[in-house]
Amino acid sequence: MEGSQLRKDPVTQRWVVISPSRAELPSPGIPPRPPGLPPEACPFCPGNEAKAGREIYVEREPGSLANGPGWWVRVVPDKYPILHIEGGLEKSAEGMYDSMNAIGAHEILVETPDHEKPWATLEILQIERVLRGCQQRSLDLRNDVRFRHVMWVKNHALPTSLFQHQHSHIVASPFVPRAIDEELKGFGSYVRWKERCVLCDMVKQEVAAGRRIILREGAVLCFLPFAPRFPYEIWIVPVDHGHDFGAARVPVLRDLARALRGILGRVRALLNDPPYTLVLHSSPLGEFTREEYHWHLELVPRPPFVLGLEWGTGIYINPVPPEVAAERLRGTEA
Amino acid sequence: MEGSQLRKDPVTQRWVVISPSRAELPSPGIPPRPPGLPPEACPFCPGNEAKAGREIYVEREPGSLANGPGWWVRVVPDKYPILHIEGGLEKSAEGMYDSMNAIGAHEILVETPDHEKPWATLEILQIERVLRGCQQRSLDLRNDVRFRHVMWVKNHALPTSLFQHQHSHIVASPFVPRAIDEELKGFGSYVRWKERCVLCDMVKQEVAAGRRIILREGAVLCFLPFAPRFPYEIWIVPVDHGHDFGAARVPVLRDLARALRGILGRVRALLNDPPYTLVLHSSPLGEFTREEYHWHLELVPRPPFVLGLEWGTGIYINPVPPEVAAERLRGTEA
Repeated sequence: MEGSQLRKDPVTQRWVVISPSRAELPSPGIPPRPPGLPPEACPFCPGNEAKAGREIYVEREPGSLANGPGWWVRVVPDKYPILHIEGGLEKSAEGMYDSMNAIGAHEILVETPDHEKPWATLEILQIERVLRGCQQRSLDLRNDVRFRHVMWVKNHALPTSLFQHQHSHIVASPFVPRAIDEELKGFGSYVRWKERCVLCDMVKQEVAAGRRIILREGAVLCFLPFAPRFPYEIWIVPVDHGHDFGAARVPVLRDLARALRGILGRVRALLNDPPYTLVLHSSPLGEFTREEYHWHLELVPRPPFVLGLEWGTGIYINPVPPEVAAERLRGTEA
Repeated sequence: MEGSQLRKDPVTQRWVVISPSRAELPSPGIPPRPPGLPPEACPFCPGNEAKAGREIYVEREPGSLANGPGWWVRVVPDKYPILHIEGGLEKSAEGMYDSMNAIGAHEILVETPDHEKPWATLEILQIERVLRGCQQRSLDLRNDVRFRHVMWVKNHALPTSLFQHQHSHIVASPFVPRAIDEELKGFGSYVRWKERCVLCDMVKQEVAAGRRIILREGAVLCFLPFAPRFPYEIWIVPVDHGHDFGAARVPVLRDLARALRGILGRVRALLNDPPYTLVLHSSPLGEFTREEYHWHLELVPRPPFVLGLEWGTGIYINPVPPEVAAERLRGTEA
């Protein structure tokens, strides 16, 4: 327990145990990755567009035909949605309990026509297209007044991933997801107390300290938070305040594309192409919008496979201090 | 997505997706269980007491010697504590960030001298001894004014478990764990609104409805909550209000022992001796005590091995409606 420390995250007010004397590797027996489909059977490969479904959004070569090859990125409805688009919310009660129909949108963003290419090797221009697609879908989905939030989640090479072809999930929900709600409480109480944004303050302090920063690309800073739940948990944050990813301007998206490329390249090199989860955190929509929120992305490489203690108690134990992880990532060639 | 529904937990206000059309089994490739140590090397077996450490608490045969064989349950310090007992909290700040020493207590409760016996086959009397040991440690640890909460966590046969010999963890922390804090907010807002306890109201409604109940043993009710995050998540709740497990009386502990034996026997039979996590939820201590809290236990069999979406967004997707799980468990012989 040499050097063990409790640290509090200033946004969520969550205490974590930073415990450098504990073993660093994940639990024994990581589940194997499934083999994935070959390109001829992959619904995300050019030529197989009909298998994936009709395009909701696309960027494609001039002159190419809708729902055929020639696209760079495309968005289609998820075939097995966790929330479905048809119907009313039909809120109801069973005594003291509240329920509603599982209404929402669940779309798949196919991020490249290339079956083999991971993000860490995509061109910056291609990552920009992905981010633009995500932004455009967020702007379109908010026209549906049933939705209170749009989330973007990318899982790479998890044991549950059926498709190795790079893709991500866009989920519009009729409630504010718990992870965002927890942050909103923190942003709200900090702004009432200090009249400033807690994440703007964190960015300033991280820039001054430098120890937890991995890289900066123009308007976007990549650092490990002071109290990360997981080893190598990385936050990717626009330096200037903005509550809504949908309103991010073109130069910011370009810097974000460069930053993601740099981070994912280093993570891949240092941790041997690990599975990872990348989640966009942005303000709720419409009347639930909160301008004190500061949009950002959170990346967790090697998400843990057993969380008995963690989800049961909310106590996270992290064996890698963020200063150590940042130093290792800074010293890695992307 | 036939019959998919969003349900809100009235305690934590968390929305979950109950999605019966999704596959029920956990992700492909559950990590294998490690083999465990043989009895001669097991620090929790009689004769090996010195390997586990000196007794903090024990129930043993009259005339047997301390730290030798003849015990029924014993509590020892954890050899690799997540929080350590020595030192001051030494709260400090790094600019806007707060930290303190990882002070706390981390003890192991050895639950039976029998190397092979799981809880589902223990005698009721032995389970009572375990609960009494847990309660006595909770009462003793609260004399240390540095601690704000005592938690009791049992992980059975997780891939991270080093020891198959039945044991559990008692953790006293200088902060209120997030899982308890979230519930406290819910108990607090409900009591302000209704002037009643939300879990007392749930118990009344569950008794009236019956559909989510598995069994009742006197003063203790076992049911699936309306909005469970995980398949077969079970709450074990004293019917009469009480905020503090430490104050539970002998007849309640006896009913609790019977209830746990019944539930764990059914879970073992129905789900083929699954891994599980069992967590005691009780009020914080001292000046942080909250009388509107209602202590209880939460059991999750087969804790999930990949939580990319869930921890990233706080959105849980549960393929087994609690009414279905309750019916299956009611129909299983313990």
